[in-house]
Amino acid sequence: MRKPTLLLFAFAFCFSAFSQKEDSIFIRKIADEILVNGKAYDNLHDLTKNIGGRLTASPQFYKAEQWGLKTLQQSGADKAWLQECMVPHWVRGGKDEASFNVYMKKNWARLDVLALGNSMGTGPKGITANVVEVKSFDDLEAKKDSIKGKIVFYNYKFNPTFIRTFQSYGDAVGYRGGGASRAAKYGALAVIVRSMSHSTDNNPHTGALRYDTTLPKIPAVAIGLKDADNLDYALQSQPGQVKVSLKTNGHFFPDTIGHNVIGELTGTEFPDQIITIGGHLDSWDPAEGAHDDGAGVVHTIEILRAFKALGYKPKHTIRFVLFANEENGLRGGTKYADEAKAKNEKHVFALESDAGGFTPRGFTFGGTPEQLKKVQSWIPLLYPYGVYEITDGGGGADVSPLNRNLKTPVAELGPDSQRYFDYHHARNDVFENVNKRELELGAINMAALIYLVDKYGL
Amino acid sequence: MRKPTLLLFAFAFCFSAFSQKEDSIFIRKIADEILVNGKAYDNLHDLTKNIGGRLTASPQFYKAEQWGLKTLQQSGADKAWLQECMVPHWVRGGKDEASFNVYMKKNWARLDVLALGNSMGTGPKGITANVVEVKSFDDLEAKKDSIKGKIVFYNYKFNPTFIRTFQSYGDAVGYRGGGASRAAKYGALAVIVRSMSHSTDNNPHTGALRYDTTLPKIPAVAIGLKDADNLDYALQSQPGQVKVSLKTNGHFFPDTIGHNVIGELTGTEFPDQIITIGGHLDSWDPAEGAHDDGAGVVHTIEILRAFKALGYKPKHTIRFVLFANEENGLRGGTKYADEAKAKNEKHVFALESDAGGFTPRGFTFGGTPEQLKKVQSWIPLLYPYGVYEITDGGGGADVSPLNRNLKTPVAELGPDSQRYFDYHHARNDVFENVNKRELELGAINMAALIYLVDKYGL
Repeated sequence: MRKPTLLLFAFAFCFSAFSQKEDSIFIRKIADEILVNGKAYDNLHDLTKNIGGRLTASPQFYKAEQWGLKTLQQSGADKAWLQECMVPHWVRGGKDEASFNVYMKKNWARLDVLALGNSMGTGPKGITANVVEVKSFDDLEAKKDSIKGKIVFYNYKFNPTFIRTFQSYGDAVGYRGGGASRAAKYGALAVIVRSMSHSTDNNPHTGALRYDTTLPKIPAVAIGLKDADNLDYALQSQPGQVKVSLKTNGHFFPDTIGHNVIGELTGTEFPDQIITIGGHLDSWDPAEGAHDDGAGVVHTIEILRAFKALGYKPKHTIRFVLFANEENGLRGGTKYADEAKAKNEKHVFALESDAGGFTPRGFTFGGTPEQLKKVQSWIPLLYPYGVYEITDGGGGADVSPLNRNLKTPVAELGPDSQRYFDYHHARNDVFENVNKRELELGAINMAALIYLVDKYGL
Repeated sequence: MRKPTLLLFAFAFCFSAFSQKEDSIFIRKIADEILVNGKAYDNLHDLTKNIGGRLTASPQFYKAEQWGLKTLQQSGADKAWLQECMVPHWVRGGKDEASFNVYMKKNWARLDVLALGNSMGTGPKGITANVVEVKSFDDLEAKKDSIKGKIVFYNYKFNPTFIRTFQSYGDAVGYRGGGASRAAKYGALAVIVRSMSHSTDNNPHTGALRYDTTLPKIPAVAIGLKDADNLDYALQSQPGQVKVSLKTNGHFFPDTIGHNVIGELTGTEFPDQIITIGGHLDSWDPAEGAHDDGAGVVHTIEILRAFKALGYKPKHTIRFVLFANEENGLRGGTKYADEAKAKNEKHVFALESDAGGFTPRGFTFGGTPEQLKKVQSWIPLLYPYGVYEITDGGGGADVSPLNRNLKTPVAELGPDSQRYFDYHHARNDVFENVNKRELELGAINMAALIYLVDKYGL
């Protein structure tokens, strides 16, 4: 009985070594194609400089839809189309303004503010009121009786000691998301939020809030770290003497029509089994949405381009999806999953890039432990291109509804996160802050992972 | 006999687990200290903005020596001193200029050039001559009969397909280092070298050349990638019709006195056994030397500062060395090792940072296989801070003479290399292109490695 077992083992080993070598060679081809002939950087330039910020339902967003459709077609999609979905239509409505003053001093110092996404404007007269600073929600509760008629300043610091900066974001983002309503509960007139960033500049970082619909929808703005420190200093040195004047203009129009932009390579063996790659096409309005999520958009398109350039014919159908409305509604990702469920589509895997165009380090994954183990077994193939870990951490926001609806295993590219929150939702999220090679390495590792899932399944 | 063995094993395991936990806690303290109270970024600002480029033997270099001495003292060195060494004194001598023209066309287009370090100037009249383009040294040999009286243009491309960009550098740098003499051998008047970079801009990247002293020392300049492509296009489209005019002013003064700047924490148990940490203080003149090697300088100082702030008393003597003259002579590193040998010093380990202030990924190491294994066994302790590999690849240039002279094991911080050659030896190697957290993470991992070597030896 020994010999056959040994032979079988030897055969399995040879096959595996052969496969691994074949995979390694093909992934090298992907890398060479993207590093030598890559279009991701040029496409990002086009998207950021010729279209710019692409807030959902803005003219720029619709321009980006057409750009995405055309670029997917030109990059070799077998077919490409727009998938309609209803989207929210929030507008900033004009320039956000703020200044602060200390009683008895005549000059108002300018605060550089950005209204939070989805927030209601102050009205044309603005709001001028005394400021109550709170360091946390516990602090808010402790001061709840002194908040009525005031502006609440959430000065919760982005924790520098988390090495992975998304942990700092997770830790702090609740003040942006829920701070307005929690302060409104105690009669606040508006809130100011310290930006979720540890950058060394003074850029305010916007991002979505969610109002509790049972409470007044009070205005909310973000300020940069230097302004936050200055305001804190004024409040500490002259307690009760600090007034802030705010004027914002945010409001909603009725929901309107937007689209996911989808390109497809039809599978040769399993055309009805779908692998999805995506990023989100919308971005906040004050910048160019270069890292968030122009990078994910051009990663997605680049993988299509590289597969076509290499003559790769996938077994499964691969969908390249530029999702609508990730930033302030997630309607695109939700629609994509809802339609998948309604049509009873079989989704094998979905991969997103929505953590910036920085040098890749890993992937996060959301699936069964067995699927995770399988994906982790491919790390040696990705290692030469910078990916050394795949951890259990779910996929991106846009693919998470697929995971919820259909139990589709999902993943997200995990680039180095040190610089991400220098730019995230701020005016400096521009093309110039994306590095060509770092961007390309993201596309390489994503393409390699898609190739492996297409070949071996999950 | 079984029980004692098992007990011994259990004890060893407990001890090891306990040690590892203790180490992990201390390294976390290092990280918190550097991330919360770090001075590396401020120190880098001071060095780059108040002193700037620090070419060996320039006034700025001597200013940097004094700055280094003062900063090491203020950061808590038990003692600090200057170690004298003779250094070369090359000067650029004025503005480098170049233009090119195609015969019959009246206008000369400006080429943006930087003379290579150590190169001889053209003389006040400059050199104007026809250009012969070569793609490689093989190509040079093939064209050797057509080179006399011409300017040779080395248009060897920085290979984009190496993922680790130092491989591309190693592959291409021979054209900068040896190209002038190889062309002089066939009667060339000057050389132009395509910069060792895959940046998207047109910055020329300087760096040292070495003349073969048996051949004429002809002028040599670097040009940026766009100019290189334009020149190539002109040469391809109008062969034999392209002239370049060059004017450079480089020359040497006699060797002079420079210094390594050294700070020390005296060991509590083994004061005569030395661990060295260093970076090089000199930089090329056209920029601020922020990544190369301001980052290494402030890494070095920051580790001293953090150890003092944490009250860490090393067993071994730790030397914090800001080396002189890495860029165009390595006299500082050589002197340090020569004196160590002459004084019969015992050097346990030497670690350098000279690959930029980018997000760390690993270390390279030069020592015995057993030492490498030991260092690699500590990776789990560094992993939370971004270091996941330690490979057999030697130390930095400045610590390599210690390795040669005394067989001292050496290492170098290995940050992510994707952006390094965008800035290396070019005008944009400035403070603004260094990220605070990426810089700090380098210091954290270096400090952790030094702590482990100090505790466990090698």
